Amino acid sequence: MDTFGRKFRISIFGESHGPAIGVIIDGVPADIELSEEDFSEDIARRAPGAKGTTPRKESDMPEILSGVLDGYTTGSPLTIIFRNANTRSGDYSEFEAMPRPGHADYTAAVKWDSANDPRGGGHFSGRITLPVVAAGVVAKKILEGTAKEEGGAGISVKARLDEIGGCADKSRWDELLTATAREGDSLGGIIDCSAEGLPIGLGEPFWDSVESLVSHAIFAIPGVRGIEFGDGFKASAMKGSEHNDPFGPEGPVKNGAGGVNGGLTNGAPLHFRVAVKPTASIAKPQKTYNFETEKMDTLAIKGRHDVCFALRTPVIVEAMTAIVLADLLLIY
Amino acid sequence: MDTFGRKFRISIFGESHGPAIGVIIDGVPADIELSEEDFSEDIARRAPGAKGTTPRKESDMPEILSGVLDGYTTGSPLTIIFRNANTRSGDYSEFEAMPRPGHADYTAAVKWDSANDPRGGGHFSGRITLPVVAAGVVAKKILEGTAKEEGGAGISVKARLDEIGGCADKSRWDELLTATAREGDSLGGIIDCSAEGLPIGLGEPFWDSVESLVSHAIFAIPGVRGIEFGDGFKASAMKGSEHNDPFGPEGPVKNGAGGVNGGLTNGAPLHFRVAVKPTASIAKPQKTYNFETEKMDTLAIKGRHDVCFALRTPVIVEAMTAIVLADLLLIY
Amino acid sequence: MDTFGRKFRISIFGESHGPAIGVIIDGVPADIELSEEDFSEDIARRAPGAKGTTPRKESDMPEILSGVLDGYTTGSPLTIIFRNANTRSGDYSEFEAMPRPGHADYTAAVKWDSANDPRGGGHFSGRITLPVVAAGVVAKKILEGTAKEEGGAGISVKARLDEIGGCADKSRWDELLTATAREGDSLGGIIDCSAEGLPIGLGEPFWDSVESLVSHAIFAIPGVRGIEFGDGFKASAMKGSEHNDPFGPEGPVKNGAGGVNGGLTNGAPLHFRVAVKPTASIAKPQKTYNFETEKMDTLAIKGRHDVCFALRTPVIVEAMTAIVLADLLLIY
Amino acid sequence: MDTFGRKFRISIFGESHGPAIGVIIDGVPADIELSEEDFSEDIARRAPGAKGTTPRKESDMPEILSGVLDGYTTGSPLTIIFRNANTRSGDYSEFEAMPRPGHADYTAAVKWDSANDPRGGGHFSGRITLPVVAAGVVAKKILEGTAKEEGGAGISVKARLDEIGGCADKSRWDELLTATAREGDSLGGIIDCSAEGLPIGLGEPFWDSVESLVSHAIFAIPGVRGIEFGDGFKASAMKGSEHNDPFGPEGPVKNGAGGVNGGLTNGAPLHFRVAVKPTASIAKPQKTYNFETEKMDTLAIKGRHDVCFALRTPVIVEAMTAIVLADLLLIY
Repeated sequence: MDTFGRKFRISIFGESHGPAIGVIIDGVPADIELSEEDFSEDIARRAPGAKGTTPRKESDMPEILSGVLDGYTTGSPLTIIFRNANTRSGDYSEFEAMPRPGHADYTAAVKWDSANDPRGGGHFSGRITLPVVAAGVVAKKILEGTAKEEGGAGISVKARLDEIGGCADKSRWDELLTATAREGDSLGGIIDCSAEGLPIGLGEPFWDSVESLVSHAIFAIPGVRGIEFGDGFKASAMKGSEHNDPFGPEGPVKNGAGGVNGGLTNGAPLHFRVAVKPTASIAKPQKTYNFETEKMDTLAIKGRHDVCFALRTPVIVEAMTAIVLADLLLIY
Repeated sequence: MDTFGRKFRISIFGESHGPAIGVIIDGVPADIELSEEDFSEDIARRAPGAKGTTPRKESDMPEILSGVLDGYTTGSPLTIIFRNANTRSGDYSEFEAMPRPGHADYTAAVKWDSANDPRGGGHFSGRITLPVVAAGVVAKKILEGTAKEEGGAGISVKARLDEIGGCADKSRWDELLTATAREGDSLGGIIDCSAEGLPIGLGEPFWDSVESLVSHAIFAIPGVRGIEFGDGFKASAMKGSEHNDPFGPEGPVKNGAGGVNGGLTNGAPLHFRVAVKPTASIAKPQKTYNFETEKMDTLAIKGRHDVCFALRTPVIVEAMTAIVLADLLLIY
Repeated sequence: MDTFGRKFRISIFGESHGPAIGVIIDGVPADIELSEEDFSEDIARRAPGAKGTTPRKESDMPEILSGVLDGYTTGSPLTIIFRNANTRSGDYSEFEAMPRPGHADYTAAVKWDSANDPRGGGHFSGRITLPVVAAGVVAKKILEGTAKEEGGAGISVKARLDEIGGCADKSRWDELLTATAREGDSLGGIIDCSAEGLPIGLGEPFWDSVESLVSHAIFAIPGVRGIEFGDGFKASAMKGSEHNDPFGPEGPVKNGAGGVNGGLTNGAPLHFRVAVKPTASIAKPQKTYNFETEKMDTLAIKGRHDVCFALRTPVIVEAMTAIVLADLLLIY
Repeated sequence: MDTFGRKFRISIFGESHGPAIGVIIDGVPADIELSEEDFSEDIARRAPGAKGTTPRKESDMPEILSGVLDGYTTGSPLTIIFRNANTRSGDYSEFEAMPRPGHADYTAAVKWDSANDPRGGGHFSGRITLPVVAAGVVAKKILEGTAKEEGGAGISVKARLDEIGGCADKSRWDELLTATAREGDSLGGIIDCSAEGLPIGLGEPFWDSVESLVSHAIFAIPGVRGIEFGDGFKASAMKGSEHNDPFGPEGPVKNGAGGVNGGLTNGAPLHFRVAVKPTASIAKPQKTYNFETEKMDTLAIKGRHDVCFALRTPVIVEAMTAIVLADLLLIY
């Protein structure tokens, strides 16, 4: 099942070693201006190249196959594909004997035993987040536009990296990344995300609480370990009188709840933080089991990998959040 | 939309001030022994009465309306209801002028303006978790039984309270609860949940990752502020070489990932922690806005409320986890 | 899967030999006046007693468990149950050896082999149409009210029996039913259904065409053999110039299409006909196979059965149509 | 909503005047041999060119974008696209003033008023059935293969044209088509469809009866006016003793029910008939309303159109049936 959402419904398809990957979005309103250029900025934010990210090239040009005519959405399903530049490689066969720690090689091999099935060969590719970013661009257009129509400033969603490897001091990140790369090791991070301009009452009281839907989407991003809203884990150590957000004439006067009461947006910004694990693929040798020799062995993963893929993750968090909010807005 | 799950599908219905609340569960396998007594233990764990919880009486006896004949499930939809003892009260009208901080009075009033609509009157009742606990009992029966058939020990799900008000020292909880009750204030907590005996490969790689589904269900519980799997937020400050779980002959040798790789269970226990906020309703006066007088005012909430509803929440966390896992097991 | 509809979603539950059967309806708008008396008329139309229908008593009193407060719907899920008067009977065990022609005894026994499972014992009870009729009452209230708000006369759905046993001459039906009852045989019929006052454009161009949704619901009624819209099967023998409905200033000037173009309502009444088979249970001896003796044998079904259950079916056709149209109207 | 099916789920996308149309199929099992050549035969059966069908050229070459590697399905979503040869034409603007009888010009213009929206401009293109035929090819592969694995002959689905313009005598069809073409008029037809080799018990007792699902899919085909199973409309005029199918040792000895009892397949072939209307677009002048001049006017539709599109419809009926049965088989 590769579909998410109720009204703004997105379905992801494709393998990184097949001809193309893509996304089909059902429920996009008609008459939104949309061209392939609109995707450039967010795709660039996800692309490798910055310090701490992998220098591999990817073919990241979107092609719109349906749902847009003469530069405007038509209201029928929107299909965007990305051609894959590289055809199938045999890179992954070695991981059948020695599954990489922190990867799904082992679990996928148990779940799908087909030789042909790419899900069974360790190909849980991060490339799948590329169509997510594309869907996020469309979702953000909906969020911006809908509110503007009603005289508002539009809804904005912004995610940024707050910590790398436990360090919040941005001026020290370069040094930290360089040193970690030298060790052949990797780093995680914490992402902070806010959405402003939301109407009051998005979400549903129970199964479809805003937190339920946002966390569902965020944990689909590979490598996420935790999420917390507002005061988050700290709330568990606060008194009610400290954590409760009193109201002022314009709504809550502080934001311990992260913008949600009883599952519904309360007028304050939606605010949450996401913990991202360190990149699993590291050059540094790891002691792990060899299922062929049936002995403990040493694995050093070759190739170039992100020291800290959390650097590329904020735009994906933003996309996921926008996808959830666009769906809630269209249902509302 | 009050439905959750794909194969083990649960739908909750009812208001705390109507005749009954209940749950209908689609997808329950036939031939599971089930009677109304099976629900007693978990319902008691959720019931008020322990120190730090409210001493109100509730009518918590389940009635099975369909799906069971001669003490065994039939495979057709299972319906369980709980009659409500108290009819409609006017308790909530005062919160129209002064919405309670930490409650949905304000957001619900904006979303639903109908005088009759209980969703618009602040009745986001915690009683809705009673049918969830009932569904959890059925889910746990499926988890225990299915694995046992194949010679295993069955799948168990256990949640326990780990911290109250930031304090992990259980011997000090009584004192802490008593002191906080005396102040008219409230406390939150942290719940630890583990599921053991899971097959490898439950879950799907993307939208239906185990973490996505579990967090979706957990955030439906009123008052949850955060969730983290395995090393959780600490993972963001670890190196890859520390956080990665190397394999041994029997699977992962440690559990930094919380039992999930690439969205799929990896054979280690599923393990996560949940942050619960302090009870929102407190006797201690709170400064908040009065929308009638259009001035800041002071609100002291009457009645008896849980000092720490986190004491009653572990069985709900357990139920939600079992519901998600039963669904994944039946799909697998 | 016992759920139908997207916004006005109905789920049926219960067995005729368990404590109750019922329906839960999600998506009912708030503030519709509704009481248990509203169901009497349609339930009476479905009830046995008229000539040609079975004289058995049933317990047909609805009980509203949720979704209504102070006589008005609340907008949350509406649950209606019907207690079953008779507990489990052993009537059906004989059909294990000799499955009744025209019944699901044989197919159900192959599909579900559980001794306890009522689906495996021939209990495909017609009683399941009772909650459908109840849901139809709610749907008709929505159809009537919504259009009235906008100054219209409301949407009405009317189904009537047009033929019994191939005879359209109503004055001869009594005689035909009496004679057929005397032979221990049974009769089918044709039902004509129209919905007037529909807005233009209900439905979707492809999978959710009006005809697709209506036929889906109608074929869920036990014993339906065919459905045709507008000119129906006769259209296959017409020229385009005869079958096409030209437009006048107020829309189509005739109704060969049955009120639907390209899957969407076109302003003319929705009009279709339904073929209902003769009652399968007949007293007249039938030669059929005995799976126990492994020889052809003779089966005479005891008890009192409808000579022509098509007499009771129009209100069910009406309910199904209203359920589909209410869903389309709420989505529109 | 452009999705159909529960496990074998198909989503159609694209406009005939955009870059491409296509289908994404979720739930295709891994390891089915599949190449672009597999689609040729069925696509040719749908293609224009035979007597009575339109001589226009279409670009009907499928391109597989995902879900197949090295000639075998991978188990992940299968995407097939068809590039559109012709870009947007202005052909349809004239129908804004005078909507074509039998088309959706009028209803779509009321439903969607956007100038850009192709759904609002009369573009309810028959081209959408091309991806349906492609999905049918995949579905038929599943039906053939699954049963073969278990030693059976596989499930086959066959549809053929039985009548044209009310004439069952095939030798007279040529003459009838030629004469009707000369008049600038059109013809309908009746299609007969059978599926053999089905296991007993496909389908569900109520909402998802086999007849419900098949009719849902069949009525999505543009121009279908009726469907009947087994004895169909004739059953309404039969006695129970005539219509009932007695059992022999191998199952039902005749097929008045069309292979379904109580919504479930009963071992006999699934058998039904479909009424197809005459082509709506005819050269023969039609009196209809001109919404611009606000007077009755005469419309003669230019261009070349099928005299009888029922000639091209059997392969589409076959595809729809296979899609439904493959879904039921994978759920079973």
